[in-house]
Amino acid sequence: MGGSLAMALRGRVGGLAGVDRHAATRQLALRRQIVETATDDLTTGIANADLVVLATPVRSIITVLEQLPHLRPEGCMLLDLGSTKQEICTAMEKLPDEFAAVGGHPMCGKETAGLQAADANLYRGQTFVLTRNARTTPAVEAAALAIVSAAGARPLFMEAEEHDRLVAMASHVPYLISAALMHCAAAMDDNAVWAVSASGFRDTSRLSGSDPRMMLDILLTNRDAVSGALSAYRQMLEQLSNWLETTEESTLSQWLYAAQHQHVQYRQQKSKD
Amino acid sequence: MGGSLAMALRGRVGGLAGVDRHAATRQLALRRQIVETATDDLTTGIANADLVVLATPVRSIITVLEQLPHLRPEGCMLLDLGSTKQEICTAMEKLPDEFAAVGGHPMCGKETAGLQAADANLYRGQTFVLTRNARTTPAVEAAALAIVSAAGARPLFMEAEEHDRLVAMASHVPYLISAALMHCAAAMDDNAVWAVSASGFRDTSRLSGSDPRMMLDILLTNRDAVSGALSAYRQMLEQLSNWLETTEESTLSQWLYAAQHQHVQYRQQKSKD
Repeated sequence: MGGSLAMALRGRVGGLAGVDRHAATRQLALRRQIVETATDDLTTGIANADLVVLATPVRSIITVLEQLPHLRPEGCMLLDLGSTKQEICTAMEKLPDEFAAVGGHPMCGKETAGLQAADANLYRGQTFVLTRNARTTPAVEAAALAIVSAAGARPLFMEAEEHDRLVAMASHVPYLISAALMHCAAAMDDNAVWAVSASGFRDTSRLSGSDPRMMLDILLTNRDAVSGALSAYRQMLEQLSNWLETTEESTLSQWLYAAQHQHVQYRQQKSKD
Repeated sequence: MGGSLAMALRGRVGGLAGVDRHAATRQLALRRQIVETATDDLTTGIANADLVVLATPVRSIITVLEQLPHLRPEGCMLLDLGSTKQEICTAMEKLPDEFAAVGGHPMCGKETAGLQAADANLYRGQTFVLTRNARTTPAVEAAALAIVSAAGARPLFMEAEEHDRLVAMASHVPYLISAALMHCAAAMDDNAVWAVSASGFRDTSRLSGSDPRMMLDILLTNRDAVSGALSAYRQMLEQLSNWLETTEESTLSQWLYAAQHQHVQYRQQKSKD
């Protein structure tokens, strides 16, 4: 996500400095001219930055936010790209007055992580959620909006609590049901299951290939909302299971037609975006 | 599925006659030269056919199989494209000796049904399951293999019971979990859920747009296998829910890594096909 944003911002900002602990990633970023300088030292990397963009798994973002007052005592502007917002915004609010920060979450991504998969057009036309908090100043909000605009995304201000509750159902539960499907197919212990799996299985199981490190941080920093969404989801499956077992054909049929109808409405909504 | 198969077979068979009860579909099939003749009368439509391909929802296939001894007393060769195989093969086995029949299920498809969505290349490179039964003769098996080959698909012989058990997990449960996701997202009753939904939600919910009529027949003719697969799936989600609530980080982490690993293996398996 960070690499893709840097690529989208090239030539549209005063300069780009990258911080990454992996030498291979830094070398690739320099070779592809995604950044002008690259270092593994956070203090050096952010020393001259007007705005620092934190683009790591959620719990690493929180760790860096806790270290920042020591690493950059004079403060700076901050935007993060973390997938959950409540714990990050709470950590931002603990920063001293020298810091100005706004939470961010671009609603795009790939199941393939890493700079190799970076794409300058990843953000184009996508929703970029921004969450204000007690550390959000007009200046950092304007800077964040300029970045969102330069990347070709559409800003959407939202409370951190609402964001986390909605993405629990729109993103985190889809990941879990995809991973559970992959586990259940493998548990059949019959190689023919892969031979009979077609595009439906491919798409429904795609998210199971997501980066586990990133997803673990997401699940653990959004545990209550994910648990709530998963509980609602499991109740839906229980109902469905009962209808199947008691052959309630008309109830089941209505439910299938309603799902198709909702899918049409959802696709229409997205095509208008 | 029937329209796509007819398009794939054009010029490779002696002739193609279509039977459909909708006048608009028949007109489209004639105008696009997908078939040479089209009728809404089954008796007329199959009168001169060497081989009849049944390509309707599963319960309609079974109804036609029950009518065939009256409609065509001299018998014929039969292949079906139904998504579940046990009930269809049982119905095939009740046919008199004049009929020769083999069950078929091409592992491809679109969530968009109908002749408008027909595609001559739909079958290319895809697995085409064939299920022998008491009515399967060498002649109908050879005819079915010729059709599979002409469509560019790869035949895979399988017992009807194994097919139904495997597709319950590889296809029918994916449909149900996709439809349940769509229902749960809609039940949040907050339009912002669509704004924060990205490619992950789009792919995981894609199957919810499938044809409800076709899916209802599939679910009801494969009720036991679908119930069993859904039960295993629900147990997986229950376990997951417990890990989340008790914050069993290392167990959860291992499970996420195993899902990603399995996804890589699955993709490698499919890329070899």
